Parts: sequence; structure tokens; C-alpha cells
Amino acid sequence: MKAHTEYLWFETDRAEEFVRITDEVADMVKRSGIEDGFVLVSAMHITAAVYVNDWEGGLIEDIHEWLDGLAPKANYRHHRTGEDNGEAHLKNLIMHHQVTVPITDGHLDLGPWQQIFYAEFDGQRRKRVILKALGI
Amino acid sequence: MKAHTEYLWFETDRAEEFVRITDEVADMVKRSGIEDGFVLVSAMHITAAVYVNDWEGGLIEDIHEWLDGLAPKANYRHHRTGEDNGEAHLKNLIMHHQVTVPITDGHLDLGPWQQIFYAEFDGQRRKRVILKALGI
Amino acid sequence: MKAHTEYLWFETDRAEEFVRITDEVADMVKRSGIEDGFVLVSAMHITAAVYVNDWEGGLIEDIHEWLDGLAPKANYRHHRTGEDNGEAHLKNLIMHHQVTVPITDGHLDLGPWQQIFYAEFDGQRRKRVILKALGI
Repeated sequence: MKAHTEYLWFETDRAEEFVRITDEVADMVKRSGIEDGFVLVSAMHITAAVYVNDWEGGLIEDIHEWLDGLAPKANYRHHRTGEDNGEAHLKNLIMHHQVTVPITDGHLDLGPWQQIFYAEFDGQRRKRVILKALGI
Repeated sequence: MKAHTEYLWFETDRAEEFVRITDEVADMVKRSGIEDGFVLVSAMHITAAVYVNDWEGGLIEDIHEWLDGLAPKANYRHHRTGEDNGEAHLKNLIMHHQVTVPITDGHLDLGPWQQIFYAEFDGQRRKRVILKALGI
Repeated sequence: MKAHTEYLWFETDRAEEFVRITDEVADMVKRSGIEDGFVLVSAMHITAAVYVNDWEGGLIEDIHEWLDGLAPKANYRHHRTGEDNGEAHLKNLIMHHQVTVPITDGHLDLGPWQQIFYAEFDGQRRKRVILKALGI
């Protein structure tokens, strides 16, 4: 059995920004030498998510707007600490901070339209995603 | 260590339909010969989810209605591409497209009421779920 | 390859309560002897969740209030069975019932602010979380 770990760093230009990372994850899986197993793709921050969905600009804008409705900017209790990012924590919870991608025959075993995204909700500073592959 | 992979195919009668798949996953785990490990159950489409909850008809109707409220049919930007399923993408994001089920002593190690469901949000065509078990 | 399984039991004082379990998961990983791999932390009930976010009291209150808005108490179809906890099932679905935590060098490989929580939505009775670690 093999385990292989890498980290991806992000520093987005905008506070909220979605970044496609399918190719980075696929390259890491090649470097791992794992033919059959899983790769965990997991944000290491509590105001960012990782999700799998469509690489289509209109939909990506729809997701931003939809999340603004479900987790609006507001006067959260959390802001008493001096923070102003309460809604970014709630967006992390809706979107979930991680996905597990299956590896088959040395490749990401994704459906035809599935793309992996890093979803930043409180950016403009350095943040990290862990990639850990486990398998044979 | 062993890895074992199978795929489940679906073609639901209705556009939105939840299908219980606990038995199919349990049978696949038996075929894998894995005694201790994980099985990933992951939709390979971006308008379908996999979730674990109760096998109770009233609750299943409640979940459909509740999702219609959180991700309503609307004139999404995504529809400029010719698609008309924006809300199905958003329901996929709320519900998450995958679960990892623990395997102990060769069986799914689920709680007494936990059942695995495939949640179709844009059906009436062939779609797929990957089952990948990893363990010893 | 090693696999190691433990169960955490909860009986919360309140119907809805979030309990930090990072230390319990870290101790279990030490006992597993696994240096590199994953630990799945998964609620075995359909009215409880496991999530990773901030250990800050104001935010925890914000999350409770926000979930009450997204999944309010109501006259759900599920209540025809004699149950009165429909909203607890829906909160489980939003928050997801599990996380997978990476293990690196024998430790939980979490970001600086990431803490693991058990989120009870229908407590005051004995409930369980499975911890299963897999790796080398």
C-alpha cells in the first residue's frame, strides 16, 4: 500500500473566488504512483470549501449568488471577536470542505462533467488544500 | 490490501427520484472480500447526490419539498447554455454527491436507521454511481 | 496496512448541542499506530452530523440560529409516524454526517483553526459516532 501527500497553496485576488483544480489533483495522482484507491482533497481552512460540479461560467455565478442568499452578510455573533467573515464560515458548511475522488487505473475516476473546485470565501491571503492519496 | 470497484447504473422514471441502494452496496462489499475498510459511494454526475438518512416515505417527500424551497426552479444564468437544470446542480451541492461507508467484519457498519440513497435531480436518462472499496 | 476502529458515545443534555471531539479523534489515531492515512469520523444516526469548523462560541450560536432558519420546526409529513424531529433530519443533510481527516506523521493533519465537532440535533439519548482509521 502507498500513501502520498501534497499541499496546494492559494491566494485569490478576490475575497470570494472558485478555482478549478482538477488538473492539479490529476497530476498529483500520477506522481503518487497509485493505481487503485482514493485521493482526499480537503480545504485546511474554515472559510473555504472543495466541491465537484460543472465548469460552466454561468453556473459558477449562479452558485455565488445562491450562496449569498443562503448565507447572507449579517451582523453575526462571531463578529464580536473582531472578525467580519461569519457568512464565509456558513458557506463552508453548506458546500462541505472536502471531497474524496476515486482513483482507477492510475486516473481520477470522475464522470464526464465532474470537475474539482476550490471555493474561497475569505481570500486575498495564503490558504492551503491537502491532497492525500491512499491505495495500491 | 484490497481494492474493489463496481458501478451502479440508474435510469429513473421521474426527473427527481430517490432510490435506496443500501442492499446493492452491501452486496458489493461481500463480493470485495474486504473485512475492514471503507466503501466510497459517489455519484458520477453533477445533478445527482448520494446521502444517508431514513427510509421513511413521509420524510422522503419532506426532503423533496424542502430542497425545492432551498434551490427553486428559476431563470439561472446556466440556462443560457441551453440547459434547464440549474436547480438540480444546486441540490447536488446541498446534498453532497458522496458518502464513505465504514466496513467492519465484512459488513457495512451503519447505525440502526441509516440507509444509503441515490438522489436523482435530473433523471430519465442513464446515470452512474461508483462504488470503490479499500481495506484489508 | 492497518485498520483501527473505535466508537464514541454521546448523550447530550440538550436536544441540540455541538460537542468538540478533536482531542478524542487525535487520541484514537495515536492508539491506531497509523502514521499516514485517513480517519473517517461518521455519525451513526440520521439526526446528527459531524463537521469541521471554528471553536468559537459566538459562531457556534450563529450556526444553531442559521440552521433553525434553513430547516425550521414545522408540521412535516414525517411526523405522521409519531416522530417530531423532521427538522433534525434536514439539519443532518445540510451539515453532512461525516468528515474524513487526513493523518500525516501520526497526527491529524488539520489546518490551524480546524476543529472537529459532533452536532447533535435530537439528543438527550445515547448516540454513537464511528471512528475508523486506515493507513500505514
